[in-house]
Amino acid sequence: MMVCTALVFFMHSGFAFLEIGLTRQKNTINILFKNIFIITVGLLMYYIGGFNLMYPGEFNGFLGFAGFGLETDAAGVSAAYADGGYTYWTDFLFQGMFAATAATIVSGAVAERIKLGPCMIFTVIYVGLVYPIVGSWQWGGGFLSTLGGEDAGFYDFAGSTLVHSVGGWGALVAIWLLGARIGKFGEKGKPNAIPGHNIPMATAGVLILWLGWFGFNGGSVLSADPALTSLVLTTTCLAAAAGGIGAFAVSTLAYKNYDLTMFLNGILGGLVGITAGADLMTPNEAVMIGLISGAIIVGGVALIDRLRLDDPVGAVTVHLICGIWGTLAVGLFGSKAGADQLLYQLAGVGAAGVFCMLSALTIIFTLKKTIGIRVDRQEELEGLDLHEHGMDSYADFRMNQH
Amino acid sequence: MMVCTALVFFMHSGFAFLEIGLTRQKNTINILFKNIFIITVGLLMYYIGGFNLMYPGEFNGFLGFAGFGLETDAAGVSAAYADGGYTYWTDFLFQGMFAATAATIVSGAVAERIKLGPCMIFTVIYVGLVYPIVGSWQWGGGFLSTLGGEDAGFYDFAGSTLVHSVGGWGALVAIWLLGARIGKFGEKGKPNAIPGHNIPMATAGVLILWLGWFGFNGGSVLSADPALTSLVLTTTCLAAAAGGIGAFAVSTLAYKNYDLTMFLNGILGGLVGITAGADLMTPNEAVMIGLISGAIIVGGVALIDRLRLDDPVGAVTVHLICGIWGTLAVGLFGSKAGADQLLYQLAGVGAAGVFCMLSALTIIFTLKKTIGIRVDRQEELEGLDLHEHGMDSYADFRMNQH
Amino acid sequence: MMVCTALVFFMHSGFAFLEIGLTRQKNTINILFKNIFIITVGLLMYYIGGFNLMYPGEFNGFLGFAGFGLETDAAGVSAAYADGGYTYWTDFLFQGMFAATAATIVSGAVAERIKLGPCMIFTVIYVGLVYPIVGSWQWGGGFLSTLGGEDAGFYDFAGSTLVHSVGGWGALVAIWLLGARIGKFGEKGKPNAIPGHNIPMATAGVLILWLGWFGFNGGSVLSADPALTSLVLTTTCLAAAAGGIGAFAVSTLAYKNYDLTMFLNGILGGLVGITAGADLMTPNEAVMIGLISGAIIVGGVALIDRLRLDDPVGAVTVHLICGIWGTLAVGLFGSKAGADQLLYQLAGVGAAGVFCMLSALTIIFTLKKTIGIRVDRQEELEGLDLHEHGMDSYADFRMNQH
Repeated sequence: MMVCTALVFFMHSGFAFLEIGLTRQKNTINILFKNIFIITVGLLMYYIGGFNLMYPGEFNGFLGFAGFGLETDAAGVSAAYADGGYTYWTDFLFQGMFAATAATIVSGAVAERIKLGPCMIFTVIYVGLVYPIVGSWQWGGGFLSTLGGEDAGFYDFAGSTLVHSVGGWGALVAIWLLGARIGKFGEKGKPNAIPGHNIPMATAGVLILWLGWFGFNGGSVLSADPALTSLVLTTTCLAAAAGGIGAFAVSTLAYKNYDLTMFLNGILGGLVGITAGADLMTPNEAVMIGLISGAIIVGGVALIDRLRLDDPVGAVTVHLICGIWGTLAVGLFGSKAGADQLLYQLAGVGAAGVFCMLSALTIIFTLKKTIGIRVDRQEELEGLDLHEHGMDSYADFRMNQH
Repeated sequence: MMVCTALVFFMHSGFAFLEIGLTRQKNTINILFKNIFIITVGLLMYYIGGFNLMYPGEFNGFLGFAGFGLETDAAGVSAAYADGGYTYWTDFLFQGMFAATAATIVSGAVAERIKLGPCMIFTVIYVGLVYPIVGSWQWGGGFLSTLGGEDAGFYDFAGSTLVHSVGGWGALVAIWLLGARIGKFGEKGKPNAIPGHNIPMATAGVLILWLGWFGFNGGSVLSADPALTSLVLTTTCLAAAAGGIGAFAVSTLAYKNYDLTMFLNGILGGLVGITAGADLMTPNEAVMIGLISGAIIVGGVALIDRLRLDDPVGAVTVHLICGIWGTLAVGLFGSKAGADQLLYQLAGVGAAGVFCMLSALTIIFTLKKTIGIRVDRQEELEGLDLHEHGMDSYADFRMNQH
Repeated sequence: MMVCTALVFFMHSGFAFLEIGLTRQKNTINILFKNIFIITVGLLMYYIGGFNLMYPGEFNGFLGFAGFGLETDAAGVSAAYADGGYTYWTDFLFQGMFAATAATIVSGAVAERIKLGPCMIFTVIYVGLVYPIVGSWQWGGGFLSTLGGEDAGFYDFAGSTLVHSVGGWGALVAIWLLGARIGKFGEKGKPNAIPGHNIPMATAGVLILWLGWFGFNGGSVLSADPALTSLVLTTTCLAAAAGGIGAFAVSTLAYKNYDLTMFLNGILGGLVGITAGADLMTPNEAVMIGLISGAIIVGGVALIDRLRLDDPVGAVTVHLICGIWGTLAVGLFGSKAGADQLLYQLAGVGAAGVFCMLSALTIIFTLKKTIGIRVDRQEELEGLDLHEHGMDSYADFRMNQH
């Protein structure tokens, strides 16, 4: 569990590299700054209140709070916690490493045009309140976990919905309210590709994220049961590989081009897709879920473009669309498959979607009407690094003007 | 074991960074694409058939196959597998992470001039058939493992021969059939250095590979025996350090220059050299094997140049020559040293060499005579990224023309 | 423990990336070369003699030596070592991974102007002799560990003093004797910022260092006690996050600028600050120590500039000043707090400081008066990569002239 916590922590590097790699050089410092802020403030917010909002103990199933800070008495840290499977501190830290992920997903989608201040305010609220409340509905023993009675209900092994789509819904609302980057859509709304400035860094990011998923899914077994943990790692890796191959195959057929970023996003799609049911699937089912995730990536990216939404890193496609797909896949494949389960899964997707969209809408709309959320035209053209940070990400290199 | 699997997975990032770092910017996307393809398709091929080709159970010692896919019944995943040391799934995934390595080694050597299509076909066949068949001769209980009767035979702890030289032989054949990059050899065959475009990335790659070797060699103990595992990690790290220092010393004496890439390849040479006998050596012997590996690296790179072979990343020297050296070292140093053992080691090297060279020759020669294996002159000069992928690895930076 | 060893090894990548990221492109190969040298030679020096100098068994409390090399007899590797908590080999390798850190800290501070030869000589002596002797005073059971009698004395959980300030004192002496880089201080000593050439690499370095601290502090529990280990990871991560937020808040208030490098150094400051007492603090105390560390970073960087010392990567502030702060914090916060303990802590800081400064002064002054320690003016202006290595770190890119 503690090793898994370290791996999940390292995923934040993966997100950071992926985001800067797929965007332009002139906004690199800004993106790194946001990511570092999210990691640090996310952990502190989770410490201050998030953990006890997500795991409130006995509660009404919708909202509960067990108080600020952490227990520090002997009982709290005793080996008897969680039947000895892991300790109270491990539980906090492992969950705390997840917490910031939802905000990171949003941060990637709004890159290159959002003001830093409102982005930080959004992060604090979304990580501190929205994410743990949704989490409490299922992992805290809330209403989603008992939709079908005591022994049945919504199922989300490691967070296709509770982590990835929570971030994805926020990202969707944010890019809609924020608008596209200057130059993204030409006359008649024709989308232009804005190439990322460092594809090796983006590739590194995806490989680090895959590595982190060993911890994310492996640790979510919440015990050291070797048989189940190793099955989960196997399904996770097979789905990732199949996701990449699926996206590669579909995009090569569709566009007659070997597109590396599609391949990379396919891997991430496969990982998000298997996350809800990684412990329920056979290897064949994992491969199937991965292949479909890969195909969804190619279609989803085209769809987002068609909707005139500008998502520089593909966050909505990867985390929201594949998150929904993975959640529903629990009702279609694997040991829980069935009509009832599919309904529970739909209910979970819907409940998270409505709450997250309303929350994000409220927060971001308020910010937009008060302090504003978008940098001005000159700053966007010249880069946020120069205007917000007065720094250059690669001081010794000449850049092309974009 | 599961942590080791994660570390071995991460080695693929190391290979990718090393390869792009030591080559030119204009082929970076292409190299990353090949590496991502190899990781994903390699795991899927190993799932489809490779695992059961490598571990066929009872067989004639040369070729066996236990069927497609993985077992999914209860017995297959029981804790009783491998005397409880690790599970069936862990076994598959750990081995599966190795499988792609052989193809990655080849991919580095043929960089900057091979067509993507034939390279992908070669990968599928080499990872799917050649690697597991050679592996079955030893790790699957085949004829190499019992050369000297039931209790004696070829020994290759974690794959100096079965992984590294399998890749190295393929690389040797491939660069011979493919020819050198334009500009590599001047008039009278004088070799020109073609500098890599991102040495920090190459350095990162080597450090990640060293990290991965903790998993590669550590996990190959195939149990959690702490005494043996920690000895293996100690010999591994000492050999790596000695390999670096050996190459540094010899290259500084020979060329009066502090050559970072020689230092880095020396570390890799030390790691490959210790791999066959990491569990048999004392620390002093490990240092000795490492120092010799480092010296071999300097000589090997000069030899490959002298033979007018073009190996942009030094793959043949690191993986083949040091792989052979490490395999033979088991007969010269450590607890198995002796004339008989040295003969078994030579037999193993020879058997793998003949089979891999014939296989690689057959595959690559066929590809060369049918669809062709080399990009045309203009594509090579302008870069494979532009022609095969239509993408630029660092879109915001001006490049020098090479 | 073995996983922790791997993570601590990986910290060397973090240091390397941080150092090259915060310095100029023209010295990148040189810095990487020094780091690779330090890792490899550091491990070998620790093997040859350092380990037995640091853990001499029974000794006079100031200096002892248990002989060259490692034990290889059966008893040495028995599971009974350390009450079965870890093996002799693990002990060596984990400690050996630490050993090079002190030299790496110095290497960062002297970057961009020191000659390679004398830097290598300093490394060998400092890692081979100075570091293990100071370490033996506490971790080897020497006089610091029993300052207050058998059951009380100096306390340094994972090395705020014994690792970080040992490096920091050396760095302080070195940059004083070496002088500032050309252009660092203008007329009247006004400091000029010399921007780093690759901030994404520097950010990667900090995140890798944070990851490594999971191993550094987690492994220093020296057992697999899950309650204590998980508490240590929690305090470590909370201090890191608070350190970042503290430096961010103070630097934003002081300079009206979102300074990413200050944020990053704040995280490192928090990590160094918690290292001496990571196992003694409650989460609230860890957050407090982190916040203060972050504030210290902002002040410390200004102080070093004011003293006309040139520390390109902030090593003295991070490792020395926060190392002292963290050591003293053991007397102010947590379960050992008290006036007696504060005195022991002051004594430890003082003893390490006097010995390290005298040692560094002797070594570096001797080198300065004999072979010289600083490159000539032309080499410094044109870059050490060209003059010492004849290589370019990014061969395909045009650079600005600095």
